[in-house]
Amino acid sequence: MRASVFIATSLDGFIARADGALDWLPGADGAGVPPSETGYDVFMASVDVVVMGRGTWDKVMEMGGWFYGTTPVRVLTSRALNITSQVPQTVAPLSGTPPEIVAALSREGFRHAYVDGGRTIQAFLRDGLIQRLTLTRIPVLLGHGIPLFGTLPHDVQLKHRRTQVLGDAMVQSEYDVLDAKLEA
Amino acid sequence: MRASVFIATSLDGFIARADGALDWLPGADGAGVPPSETGYDVFMASVDVVVMGRGTWDKVMEMGGWFYGTTPVRVLTSRALNITSQVPQTVAPLSGTPPEIVAALSREGFRHAYVDGGRTIQAFLRDGLIQRLTLTRIPVLLGHGIPLFGTLPHDVQLKHRRTQVLGDAMVQSEYDVLDAKLEA
Repeated sequence: MRASVFIATSLDGFIARADGALDWLPGADGAGVPPSETGYDVFMASVDVVVMGRGTWDKVMEMGGWFYGTTPVRVLTSRALNITSQVPQTVAPLSGTPPEIVAALSREGFRHAYVDGGRTIQAFLRDGLIQRLTLTRIPVLLGHGIPLFGTLPHDVQLKHRRTQVLGDAMVQSEYDVLDAKLEA
Repeated sequence: MRASVFIATSLDGFIARADGALDWLPGADGAGVPPSETGYDVFMASVDVVVMGRGTWDKVMEMGGWFYGTTPVRVLTSRALNITSQVPQTVAPLSGTPPEIVAALSREGFRHAYVDGGRTIQAFLRDGLIQRLTLTRIPVLLGHGIPLFGTLPHDVQLKHRRTQVLGDAMVQSEYDVLDAKLEA
């Protein structure tokens, strides 16, 4: 199974403010580039499962929208999920180490996971279980917040695939992670 | 006086390993993109003074090369400089807060400073004294090191000017800092 990251960060590498706020994202005021133009729609069509941490799940619930269509979502948590009537039946909790999670998703028949959330992305990267990163840099410095990247046991070499500028402001680059594992 | 930053970082935002090592830069093995193609030559021709922190100075001395031609260099330090015979006479120490440094350089007649070194860049950004950032992203995650960006008293909005891919690997983006001060 492959796993990919598709995420926006501030130029100083934050995916959210310290309290999780995303008000600095261009879409926050409705003036953003539509998902069809950011490649999000094409990316979502390429994955068959979304894996996110509990913090991201709680944030998604708070935001009120639903960004994952009918794609199954697995939330990494050992606690019960606050699943409301608006949440599709395709959502389920899951727990374990990244290799255990990848193995479990593979057993379910999934082939390509969208890994989301700071701590989850960091844990998967540390275990060499992310194959592709698509980062969209927003032209702002926040100075504080939840960082996308964390510590690693060794350098991770990347291969640049493509870069495009969105809306004359955001720089989106796609990288393959070299030497990533392809488990199960 | 204007001040600009022109620097390479890992994809996770480090400008050097924790010990200052730059071995992860493409140029480190001599296989890098030549300075004429990274825009460094054009950038250097646009500045009339280089301002760097003491840590960067010590690193430059250690590396043995001289990257600044005949452009005057000011090293932010309160200690004596270990100026060797290979170092041009255009190097001098300087100390003070970023606004004091900008004022001092303006009095010397300088118009455009190249601000270099992690702590120095962070201090100038915090004081709103950087007008332009040119960042070149190297396709590697280091996981640890000296970060380019630090804390800020408030968001810093940027305007994207241009992005180009160098050597099919490095992504160079240029930003104007909005609301930067233009001191004396």
